[in-house]
Amino acid sequence: MINSHQAIVGLDIGGANLKAWHAAGQAMAIPFALWKLPQQLSGQLAAMLQQLPVADRVVVTMTGELADCFATRMEGVEFIVRAVEQAVRSVLPHSTIQFWQTHGKFVAPSDAMASPLLTAASNWQALASMVGWLFPQDDLLLLDIGSTTTDLIPILQGQVSAGGRTDLERLAASELVYTGVRRTVVCHMLPSFQGELDRYGHVLIPLSSELFATSLDVYLLLGSLEEEPKNCETADGRPATKKFAEARLARQICSDQSELTTHDVIQLAMAAAAAQQQQIVQAARTVIDRSSRPIKKIVLSGSGEFLGRQVAIQAGFPMGAILSLKDYWTTAGSEVACARALVELALRGL
Amino acid sequence: MINSHQAIVGLDIGGANLKAWHAAGQAMAIPFALWKLPQQLSGQLAAMLQQLPVADRVVVTMTGELADCFATRMEGVEFIVRAVEQAVRSVLPHSTIQFWQTHGKFVAPSDAMASPLLTAASNWQALASMVGWLFPQDDLLLLDIGSTTTDLIPILQGQVSAGGRTDLERLAASELVYTGVRRTVVCHMLPSFQGELDRYGHVLIPLSSELFATSLDVYLLLGSLEEEPKNCETADGRPATKKFAEARLARQICSDQSELTTHDVIQLAMAAAAAQQQQIVQAARTVIDRSSRPIKKIVLSGSGEFLGRQVAIQAGFPMGAILSLKDYWTTAGSEVACARALVELALRGL
Repeated sequence: MINSHQAIVGLDIGGANLKAWHAAGQAMAIPFALWKLPQQLSGQLAAMLQQLPVADRVVVTMTGELADCFATRMEGVEFIVRAVEQAVRSVLPHSTIQFWQTHGKFVAPSDAMASPLLTAASNWQALASMVGWLFPQDDLLLLDIGSTTTDLIPILQGQVSAGGRTDLERLAASELVYTGVRRTVVCHMLPSFQGELDRYGHVLIPLSSELFATSLDVYLLLGSLEEEPKNCETADGRPATKKFAEARLARQICSDQSELTTHDVIQLAMAAAAAQQQQIVQAARTVIDRSSRPIKKIVLSGSGEFLGRQVAIQAGFPMGAILSLKDYWTTAGSEVACARALVELALRGL
Repeated sequence: MINSHQAIVGLDIGGANLKAWHAAGQAMAIPFALWKLPQQLSGQLAAMLQQLPVADRVVVTMTGELADCFATRMEGVEFIVRAVEQAVRSVLPHSTIQFWQTHGKFVAPSDAMASPLLTAASNWQALASMVGWLFPQDDLLLLDIGSTTTDLIPILQGQVSAGGRTDLERLAASELVYTGVRRTVVCHMLPSFQGELDRYGHVLIPLSSELFATSLDVYLLLGSLEEEPKNCETADGRPATKKFAEARLARQICSDQSELTTHDVIQLAMAAAAAQQQQIVQAARTVIDRSSRPIKKIVLSGSGEFLGRQVAIQAGFPMGAILSLKDYWTTAGSEVACARALVELALRGL
């Protein structure tokens, strides 16, 4: 039985974002560059816990162990487990702490460190397990598009039916596509731009390999993501607005407004968006084709749901078969979906 | 006539490296992250000038104006011109300063700022002009492979015969390939790895889009570049050694030594190197095919000459037609080739 009065907080510790969900219905997400500032992780987590209602159980999942401040993922898992312990001890000293593992269970911190490859990159598995609880009768594809990566998980009659377990296996299985709607460098979305430029006519231009612009800029310019004038978490540290996004995208082909019109840069953004969409559609088809049972529905989640919906349509799902986690968990709950999933799993007695 | 007793220093100001050549025969190169520390540029240049023999003429070329600390290339050109003026005033107050422009002439600082698109990204043109002086009778391709980018310039009977002038035009013309032997992120060299892994057998793995490993790691692991245990100018800030290069490359496919053997990672490095070589060969063929006269020779320069030689062979040049700027300018002179070219052009009365 679900006991929704339990005071449980879920933490999803990524390499670029920290996300939390409290069973009382509160979401929190902050950008945090773990690879630059690992020593601040514990303090950041403590600050988040202080802003949430009190909890007596803290459940955790992670992907941040891959950050290159850690020599290996084992080192990363151990560091993150200890940072969580330190944060929880300081803010919620009487709470228990548990970590989700990819075999589908919560374990104590010592066990999380003892089998680090089960603890690493476990957040997709928590979300998929919870979606299995929500749709126990269906054969569906979970499509979670975040800032950095995309997960495509087949869930058959409530059971997570993934082919891969580690990130490497999941990349090879097309269940993890390393592309997202904010942090993906544009040259990885689109190696070469082919199209019409106002001044030059038809061109084929290989993009520079610098980190000059990201998918955030593509979707700002196309209007899929809202402008955030105070957010400077961008490739060049300038604001997340259309004007600066245009400059960043032009720079990705070593240029600026002296050679390119706004129309030109929109063409570039459209080509990058189309290529990213195609990449995810291709992965979806691979995962669907491999399923032992026909996939009938698709469940969208994550901050890139707008892209997920286009992927779902292009992959051939009828409108009635396209579901959104937002409709079950609200927008805030969907954007911290993995953290919320942990709490829901804990509430269900796992 | 060449007056080799003139005291001239050439400066090549890139976005990631500062290079200098003094007519007395002295080279200097330092890594400098202009995009992170623009305010330190003037001080860095002054420090370089102090370590070189005195000069009464300073000649300058740049590519650093593209760095994303500048809103536009015009802003970048102006900033760099003023930084040079400040540095030269403090160290060599009686020197004249001139900037190379892509129409093939030196101009005063005020003119360099007045026509910034001629001053921007001008270093390839200085080098190509000088190679034209060295080989006045030949129809040749100059192939300069650096840490970050590759230039492919046709030079016909001593005349620079490039199709593009700005970076954008040169990318479209295959005369600039944004790939090099140190700074290129591996996912841009090789979007997907297809091959055999010891533990998994045959796999197709799309690489992560993170900046986890660069071409430096590829060539460290393959032995083409020497280990530099004290050099931490790497993707993760750890030393430029085989051991750490292996870890960085494994991370590019979200993995580490717990899943991948050294043999696996060498396979990945070989695939990335082969893809980069193929990319440059393709560009060379495009440039050669477009030439109005048959290209008979190829001149290699830059710190990536080892790769240039493989490209030249694969592109079909017989051994006797493959020349190296090292044989004319020594290794030190070739690795700061654009800075040296400026000095040589100045010595020839330009």
